[in-house]
Amino acid sequence: MDTANKVDEAAKRMNFQLKVIGIPKTIDNDLVFTDHCPGFASAAKYLAISVMEAGRHLESLYHSERVVILETLGRNTGWLAGSCALAKRSKEDAPHLIYFPEIPFSLDNFIEDVKEVYHKIGRVFIVVSEGLRDERGNYVCVRKDRVSTDAFGHPELEGISGYLKELVESRLKLKTRTIKPDICQQSAVHFTSQVDMEEAYLLGKEAVKLALEGKSGYMITIKRGKGKVYERRISAARLSLVANMEKRVPLRWINKKGNFVTKQFIDYIRPLIQGEVDIPIQNGLPCYPRLEKRKILIYSSSRYSKVSSPKKPLSNTKK
Amino acid sequence: MDTANKVDEAAKRMNFQLKVIGIPKTIDNDLVFTDHCPGFASAAKYLAISVMEAGRHLESLYHSERVVILETLGRNTGWLAGSCALAKRSKEDAPHLIYFPEIPFSLDNFIEDVKEVYHKIGRVFIVVSEGLRDERGNYVCVRKDRVSTDAFGHPELEGISGYLKELVESRLKLKTRTIKPDICQQSAVHFTSQVDMEEAYLLGKEAVKLALEGKSGYMITIKRGKGKVYERRISAARLSLVANMEKRVPLRWINKKGNFVTKQFIDYIRPLIQGEVDIPIQNGLPCYPRLEKRKILIYSSSRYSKVSSPKKPLSNTKK
Repeated sequence: MDTANKVDEAAKRMNFQLKVIGIPKTIDNDLVFTDHCPGFASAAKYLAISVMEAGRHLESLYHSERVVILETLGRNTGWLAGSCALAKRSKEDAPHLIYFPEIPFSLDNFIEDVKEVYHKIGRVFIVVSEGLRDERGNYVCVRKDRVSTDAFGHPELEGISGYLKELVESRLKLKTRTIKPDICQQSAVHFTSQVDMEEAYLLGKEAVKLALEGKSGYMITIKRGKGKVYERRISAARLSLVANMEKRVPLRWINKKGNFVTKQFIDYIRPLIQGEVDIPIQNGLPCYPRLEKRKILIYSSSRYSKVSSPKKPLSNTKK
Repeated sequence: MDTANKVDEAAKRMNFQLKVIGIPKTIDNDLVFTDHCPGFASAAKYLAISVMEAGRHLESLYHSERVVILETLGRNTGWLAGSCALAKRSKEDAPHLIYFPEIPFSLDNFIEDVKEVYHKIGRVFIVVSEGLRDERGNYVCVRKDRVSTDAFGHPELEGISGYLKELVESRLKLKTRTIKPDICQQSAVHFTSQVDMEEAYLLGKEAVKLALEGKSGYMITIKRGKGKVYERRISAARLSLVANMEKRVPLRWINKKGNFVTKQFIDYIRPLIQGEVDIPIQNGLPCYPRLEKRKILIYSSSRYSKVSSPKKPLSNTKK
């Protein structure tokens, strides 16, 4: 949205007749002024199913691992980690503990939490957000080598699940497995939320409408009704207000111990994961379309110039 | 199967009227005398879909990661890693490289392979089996601390994807992501293969039949017809012959460079992943049944006695 805002401002400065409408789209769900972002609910659904399934598997591992740590994306916000709570229908169901970037992470409290759950039910399924921070606001795990910043210059996080696994194994002598779905949670479309899919199309259409009305410099937003039944209306917010802002999980949606969500979080996410979407299947596997390469505008990156560029570079073409 | 064999032999020695029939069940697909094992095809399907989806995501990461490494289970055999090849329908599709425990792994060859694919298509999707070994037969990555053996005393493997990521980043300066589905590939049932599901039930029934016929000390097996259309018949093999044997991927099913499967592997796995299975959904998520705890026979493990045992220990009860 910051980039969209800059493009809008540049176009206005140059008096260039460009209409810029931002369409929220992030599984991180961290954009302000919108109730939620398309993509988030499907990622949440995928993660919740993964936790349900891996949680049942953990129940069967009587003689080996007693602890599983699943690491979700979310460098600064715990929306995805918190969504895993959807998997829990009874006390013994996974997940048992969830940790959020919004809550300062204490290794000692963590170990106490794990011990407590283990003593109660004999196994512990833990969900951690990749971006856990300590009391001073520093990431618990961060890499410091030279290839470790992303396209926006953010430092690369790595290994929180591996780090905590070693901690649990050395401090509690409990064998631990780690799961890192990584970009699978971003890209999985074989079991998406119907509500999410509908809203993704809806917001795209509304963005085009707004542009056709001559508006520019806005992001399309979803406003939620106050009632118990899920209702939405489409609105818009100025890009300049959205850019570089970050919506965190409200602290009242996280329990007092900082290790699980409250009912409010579940009430928020539940309506968004409803319904399934049929996908075309061919020969036992999904059919995902690919736009023809010639029709896609591709920028070549100079960051990897040390390795010589592809033999057949993907060419920029007219739109 | 080794355990089943030992129970059978002990019962025979004691003249105890117990019938022992092994039912093959392993996503590792490494049992001998059977064409394949229930569970394998569904795990293969899950992995292939994950590679399809994450592969498309990699295509969209023009400015950041150019390499993805997905780590599959399989300590000694590459059945699961090889199955990921199902995701590839065109040259540009992921996966581009697959590495097997059956083929001695050379870091230098690996780096050359990655470089070659990167120069050709500008991105590299790699699948590695957790149990890669070097020329001398030693695991490339193995932990040596005290909690790191599994229930059967096997050493714990860890971190091959993380290890190779660091190698690619330091040697080729290409940013790399890793995916570790871990027990999700073992437990995912939201998109299983219908053929696999049918065979799982079938083999259970056939095992009961065999026991009712008074047979003991056998494992149920699947024999495949020689024709082009998939046909199976049910047979049985002596447990003593199956125990502790391991079926590896035939070397002629792996290409000469040792970095992908041949058509024979695909022809083998393709019929097994056909069809989908509807699962009951409630409130946007699957409903997975849980047998009542009181009715399940549970052995308590002494290996974790250093951490005091659960407050409410799961009790052994009569069946």
